[in-house]
Amino acid sequence: MARGSAGRSALQQHLRVLDAFDALNPTRTLTEITRVTGMPHSTAHRIVGELVRERLLERGPERTYRLGLRLWEYGARTPGVVGLREAAQPWIAAANSRLRQHVQLGVRVDTDVLFIERMSANDSVVNASLVGGRVPLHASSSGLVLLAFGHRSIVEDVIATGMRRLTPHTIVEEGELRRTLRRIRNDGFGVTHGHIHLESMGVAVPVYGADGVVSASMGAVVKNTEGTPMAVIEILNVAAAGMTRTLQQQGGQPSLGPPGSGNVSQRSWEVIETVHRSRADRASRGTAGGR
Amino acid sequence: MARGSAGRSALQQHLRVLDAFDALNPTRTLTEITRVTGMPHSTAHRIVGELVRERLLERGPERTYRLGLRLWEYGARTPGVVGLREAAQPWIAAANSRLRQHVQLGVRVDTDVLFIERMSANDSVVNASLVGGRVPLHASSSGLVLLAFGHRSIVEDVIATGMRRLTPHTIVEEGELRRTLRRIRNDGFGVTHGHIHLESMGVAVPVYGADGVVSASMGAVVKNTEGTPMAVIEILNVAAAGMTRTLQQQGGQPSLGPPGSGNVSQRSWEVIETVHRSRADRASRGTAGGR
Repeated sequence: MARGSAGRSALQQHLRVLDAFDALNPTRTLTEITRVTGMPHSTAHRIVGELVRERLLERGPERTYRLGLRLWEYGARTPGVVGLREAAQPWIAAANSRLRQHVQLGVRVDTDVLFIERMSANDSVVNASLVGGRVPLHASSSGLVLLAFGHRSIVEDVIATGMRRLTPHTIVEEGELRRTLRRIRNDGFGVTHGHIHLESMGVAVPVYGADGVVSASMGAVVKNTEGTPMAVIEILNVAAAGMTRTLQQQGGQPSLGPPGSGNVSQRSWEVIETVHRSRADRASRGTAGGR
Repeated sequence: MARGSAGRSALQQHLRVLDAFDALNPTRTLTEITRVTGMPHSTAHRIVGELVRERLLERGPERTYRLGLRLWEYGARTPGVVGLREAAQPWIAAANSRLRQHVQLGVRVDTDVLFIERMSANDSVVNASLVGGRVPLHASSSGLVLLAFGHRSIVEDVIATGMRRLTPHTIVEEGELRRTLRRIRNDGFGVTHGHIHLESMGVAVPVYGADGVVSASMGAVVKNTEGTPMAVIEILNVAAAGMTRTLQQQGGQPSLGPPGSGNVSQRSWEVIETVHRSRADRASRGTAGGR
């Protein structure tokens, strides 16, 4: 494994540059990349050049760079997320049309919840989730549900990482976290009143995969009111159960489009295979355009 | 730049493994990866290991691998595609609700059209497009429109690459390609009768970006009939013009979610920034969980 500065592999260095881009910083200059990655300027310059040549980065206006089309293509071929999103979408749409508030699907990454799908109404309440954005597990109802039904070791990671306060109601203390997780496991849902923003309440339930393990959380963000909104929980439970049935019909193997999953017919699939084989033949003749 | 076998950089070797996965082959075994990449088994084994450690690949059942969650996250932060998709979605939905057939948005990559969004009805005709899937430019109406309004040099690439026949109607001859592109530039739309499947007709119009350059094609796939479907073209033109207006309102800088683009309110955006800063603080303390 080729190793560059600071003992990092070449791959780790490339990823370090890609990681400098996020939902809040979708474009970066070379100077910013140097600062954010802590790399020497010459190293950052060389790596950015390589990434642009391979179209993992694109040049934008005013000497900026942004993540490139090729990364989107890889993302579109990621069965884990794409399969979960497709299984979730009709159920999220149904829940959203009843609630008229944010309904969202989250999965765990490190000590964060990553939101992979969301539907909102125009007058929905204040909400911290973006599709492709992360929120710390301890702060969000979706995150707490993933924590309650996930590996116990993640709870220790969250405690070791430290829980940052976002409002006076955010859970920041170990004992309160453990009590809350026990209650969520008992109740089968999580409700947080103003843990991220005082005006909003988070409500979330677990989504079981075809293997019977919790694979995601189905959450809603609604106006913060007293008490536990049983009607919202009921709507989320229907959506989560529906999504689980869809995952089971897929045989536990979320796929990217073969017959039966999503809206690609058997006959269309045959055409897709033909077109694909024609592309593969062309590529193996070594003449595929590379502009 | 670290170079491995066959003079390829480390980055190119990693991408070669990721490129072994596509819509038709979303999962691969190590043996398949070795065969598809042409790498020595030991090299493929080492690179797959690195990619799994960095979560660009995930392990699936039965000794398979698939593209990993981290790639989906990068894809969700790709402003070029995500911005185009968000600008397109309401217009594609409107066109789809009138046509009740496939409506799709394509962009050019190499000598292919890459479909980045699609909406269909349950009884839509046979269609070769998948979100995240590619079709050769010369075969598809969306591709021909991108070719007609793109850089002239791409036409030469397509001719040099060779045009593969998918049906007796596919354009495979240089003169016919050039005549067709001239007609599309004159007419402002492209129509193909049975070029990919005999039962289906492709119809596409160009989408102009905020900079006045064609940035995408808005296409429909409908039942193949005689003649030119002016009603379909009219519906696509309305959608394409609407999408251009949305792109202009975004100031030519498609973004990932700030106020004004999409359904994130100014107040929600402030919360998102707060949560993000709390994550960044934690990461810079060097204690972000890494499980």
